[in-house]
Amino acid sequence: MQDWLNEKLQMLNVTEDMAKETEGFNRLSYTEEEWEAIDAFQSIAESLGMHVRMDEAGNRIARWTPEGAAGAAVAVGSHVDTVESGGGYDGVVGVLAGLGAVKILQDEKVQPSRPVEVICFASEESARFGVSTVGSKAMIGAEELLAQKDVKDKNGVSIEEAVEARGLSFAEILKAERSRDELHSFIELHIEQGMRIERAEAQIGVVTAIACPTRLKLTIQGEAGHTGTAPMAERKDALAAAAEVIQYVEAEGRRQSEKSHPPVVATASTIQALPNVMNVIPGTVELGVDIRSVDNDKKKEAAQHIFEFCQMLAHKRGITVEQSVLVDNPAVPLDDHVRNALQSSVEACGFKPYVMESGAGHDVMNMAKKVPSGLIFIPCKDGVSHHPAELASVKDIERGTRVLAGYLKNVQ
Amino acid sequence: MQDWLNEKLQMLNVTEDMAKETEGFNRLSYTEEEWEAIDAFQSIAESLGMHVRMDEAGNRIARWTPEGAAGAAVAVGSHVDTVESGGGYDGVVGVLAGLGAVKILQDEKVQPSRPVEVICFASEESARFGVSTVGSKAMIGAEELLAQKDVKDKNGVSIEEAVEARGLSFAEILKAERSRDELHSFIELHIEQGMRIERAEAQIGVVTAIACPTRLKLTIQGEAGHTGTAPMAERKDALAAAAEVIQYVEAEGRRQSEKSHPPVVATASTIQALPNVMNVIPGTVELGVDIRSVDNDKKKEAAQHIFEFCQMLAHKRGITVEQSVLVDNPAVPLDDHVRNALQSSVEACGFKPYVMESGAGHDVMNMAKKVPSGLIFIPCKDGVSHHPAELASVKDIERGTRVLAGYLKNVQ
Repeated sequence: MQDWLNEKLQMLNVTEDMAKETEGFNRLSYTEEEWEAIDAFQSIAESLGMHVRMDEAGNRIARWTPEGAAGAAVAVGSHVDTVESGGGYDGVVGVLAGLGAVKILQDEKVQPSRPVEVICFASEESARFGVSTVGSKAMIGAEELLAQKDVKDKNGVSIEEAVEARGLSFAEILKAERSRDELHSFIELHIEQGMRIERAEAQIGVVTAIACPTRLKLTIQGEAGHTGTAPMAERKDALAAAAEVIQYVEAEGRRQSEKSHPPVVATASTIQALPNVMNVIPGTVELGVDIRSVDNDKKKEAAQHIFEFCQMLAHKRGITVEQSVLVDNPAVPLDDHVRNALQSSVEACGFKPYVMESGAGHDVMNMAKKVPSGLIFIPCKDGVSHHPAELASVKDIERGTRVLAGYLKNVQ
Repeated sequence: MQDWLNEKLQMLNVTEDMAKETEGFNRLSYTEEEWEAIDAFQSIAESLGMHVRMDEAGNRIARWTPEGAAGAAVAVGSHVDTVESGGGYDGVVGVLAGLGAVKILQDEKVQPSRPVEVICFASEESARFGVSTVGSKAMIGAEELLAQKDVKDKNGVSIEEAVEARGLSFAEILKAERSRDELHSFIELHIEQGMRIERAEAQIGVVTAIACPTRLKLTIQGEAGHTGTAPMAERKDALAAAAEVIQYVEAEGRRQSEKSHPPVVATASTIQALPNVMNVIPGTVELGVDIRSVDNDKKKEAAQHIFEFCQMLAHKRGITVEQSVLVDNPAVPLDDHVRNALQSSVEACGFKPYVMESGAGHDVMNMAKKVPSGLIFIPCKDGVSHHPAELASVKDIERGTRVLAGYLKNVQ
């Protein structure tokens, strides 16, 4: 099985040797490079006798209808696009394991009771357009997608133009929507992008919920001045004020995480200071803060504490802080029955499951809004992702594949 | 006198109404706009019967040789170039007051014992090329200027090309050098760019020394990671580390200033975080720190403390901090005799002097390396400079002009 997985991993990455790809992969949304990888997915699926179709969003759907199988299909899927100089495992292992699970069942001559679909979603990463999970949003008919049609990549190409360059029509993209009746359940397998499974000495992460971000924009307005002539006691240095906010954000994440389970992560991830020249005290600083937790109340409380701290600071330093919420997505809970079935499959394979939440978003967070869904993680080396050094061992990929096969086999 | 000053202030600013110039002035180094203002300087000087010449760096030197005057000249000067959207007083009031002082002496039929020069230096501001005080550096024969010939403005024009577009030869620029024997002393009058004179209820600042910057570059290397998947306790967040450094820099400036006179000002003025995107923990942050004091030892100690703090922080957070000194210019002391003569002139005019150091650099800091030099400040509204709102009252300009006239009258 490992040979087959290694070979197909290379095919999906359109390479003859993973070890040689030290610069990483560049399969951005709706590019020719993404399409080549999706075509490779189709070839592999067809070699397994699956019927493959492309929907209006460019998702490729491979379907296997074993003899006697009936009813709504059980689906497995992920994506093959990458960030710039990304890795060859984020997304890819999900479609690979789905195909691999079909192969295991076919090799073992096991006939699942339902049709099986493996879905290769188009354009999960936000790297090109700042819009993520396009294919899975289209598949659940998320209307907000249409409003994004004019967002442009760094070369000025709009997402509408990019979609149409692939021979699709952006206006028709929501025709990819599936009805609730077509799918029994949806499972995604993904690399963990962290090290918790390994630290727990487990093999497979079984996810309870996905922590979606709340994002704040904080605009700190002090007073620019000459770095040589303004006495320390008379300054309104926006960057010195921002430094206090950055530290508070970090401390708040730690406090909320130590207080109780589940954890909260809070990060000041973007900063822009103006005028940002050596001899001028920064007059304005814009900070971006990303907060995540599967506990929406804890996330809300963290945001509230940060806002209150900023107001206290504004008063203390004689500055102003303008606060806004850019994004406030509640956590997406996953289906309990599906999770229990996945956990049983992990145990039946002889592996140790680690029950955890996901801090990152994946296609499954869209699918879960419509179909009972589950998510499992396999370990990745040093927790690294979105980087050429990203790596999941073939042993771990095989484990994940066997867990999926077990799930498909037992689904009623 | 105030009418004359107002009229010539407008001429030097190439405007018919200072109050209408709400967008500020754009007379960048070696541009046509700077040259128009320098030509206006020449016209005013010639209307006072002065002989005007341009040197090899584009400095315009106006000379008045009263009957019976002999020996080395006594010189007064500043500049008329501005930053982008700058004010109409920084630099301009210095050349205006020099010319006004000549006019006062002429009107009063006072013959100074030495020739008088008013110098309009070319290109004091670093806004266009990142190179400051070009004209005065050339006048003291500062050879480091030649090494700057290829530095470019934001449009890709080099300083050499800009100088040559003004009909000068960059290779000849140091021929502007004056010999020590030609000048008895040099005085600059400038706006304070602070509020200390006003707070001391004085009218004229008399400067003892100029605090030149020590500039540090700190490159903080942590570890990028996903804002959703990396637990708080396992992060190496370069921006959270930078926040501690920024706060330490501010605290160090305060401590050194409160400990003893003279003050130290320390500013983290520039910051760049990488990758600076919402869902990635910053892996690298580059900070620029500007430290100034007229006490070189205190400045050195502050830089040392900042370096030590960074090393402690690197150890504490498991990150690295690369430290380098970009600039380390010692303070420039001004001449005691000249300062005493200026202070006497302030008092003889019936004004209250405020003895202070300068936190900002000016053309005089070059001239002082060669010629006994002095610097006086006049107040400016709210301490604002390098901004369209920059303003010095005509009353304050007149006071400064009278102080210069008094100095020229009594010089032996």
